[in-house]
Amino acid sequence: MQVKYAIQDVYPDDFAHCYGCGRLNESGHHFRTGWEDDQTVTYYTPEPEHTAIPGFVYGGLMASLIDCHGTGSASLALLRKDGHEPEDGVEAPRFVTASLEVKFVKPTPQGVTLKAVGKFEEIRPKKFKIHTDVYAGDDIVAKGEVVAVVMPDTFTSK
Amino acid sequence: MQVKYAIQDVYPDDFAHCYGCGRLNESGHHFRTGWEDDQTVTYYTPEPEHTAIPGFVYGGLMASLIDCHGTGSASLALLRKDGHEPEDGVEAPRFVTASLEVKFVKPTPQGVTLKAVGKFEEIRPKKFKIHTDVYAGDDIVAKGEVVAVVMPDTFTSK
Repeated sequence: MQVKYAIQDVYPDDFAHCYGCGRLNESGHHFRTGWEDDQTVTYYTPEPEHTAIPGFVYGGLMASLIDCHGTGSASLALLRKDGHEPEDGVEAPRFVTASLEVKFVKPTPQGVTLKAVGKFEEIRPKKFKIHTDVYAGDDIVAKGEVVAVVMPDTFTSK
Repeated sequence: MQVKYAIQDVYPDDFAHCYGCGRLNESGHHFRTGWEDDQTVTYYTPEPEHTAIPGFVYGGLMASLIDCHGTGSASLALLRKDGHEPEDGVEAPRFVTASLEVKFVKPTPQGVTLKAVGKFEEIRPKKFKIHTDVYAGDDIVAKGEVVAVVMPDTFTSK
């Protein structure tokens, strides 16, 4: 499974280096987040080294997936509100994470493509909360909540 | 800065493959968690590729650090309760994460050694909550909360 039109394809170059989801990060995960109907989705198959206990995926990878899926979902939501879709080629607003919560529902098996499915609510015009279920096959293995805000100046004024 | 006697050195071999903190994972972060007085600490210097926005560390790494620091802290606490320290060479109980919360307080600069400092409370004999502050120099850049439980059979009965 693949997301065809990903929000990460239209992040500005300067903000496309995230280890989780940046298309310009050479060694990262390259998460790709897009629409499926009115939900946002990210697919990812963990690498063999992403082990917790042998046979299972480590929690940091799950947290990373939920995190980037959350900021990507917020960006998709705001872009659509502004009348655009990723395939339009218009630069997308870049969100950062204010907070992240992950509940590990059951051990996540390795060798399976994970599917993160997000639903969001607008808290303020530039602040969204994204609720994410991560599936391994038919099982929900983790549930996440991300509060994402449009990137503040503190990230660029360094 | 280095932790000399790390709890991860005394995890049983079968449970020492975590990408975050497993001494037997060839490509992981090799987080090492030990005591400093009555607090638990983990030091880590993120790699250059662990980028969020250039110059800053991505959230997944911070979540991973807080996660493994949390399970390590719980193991340190239970081991000490049982009368041992990591330097004794006695195998430590292996915890897994039930839930993880991360608040991103300020952007985390790259090129700085991070220090996670944990305090814990016992919820039940085999269940701990760990409160973690992550420092970059004098600044707290993230705050975390992990609920960790001794590894259930679902991880080994596969």
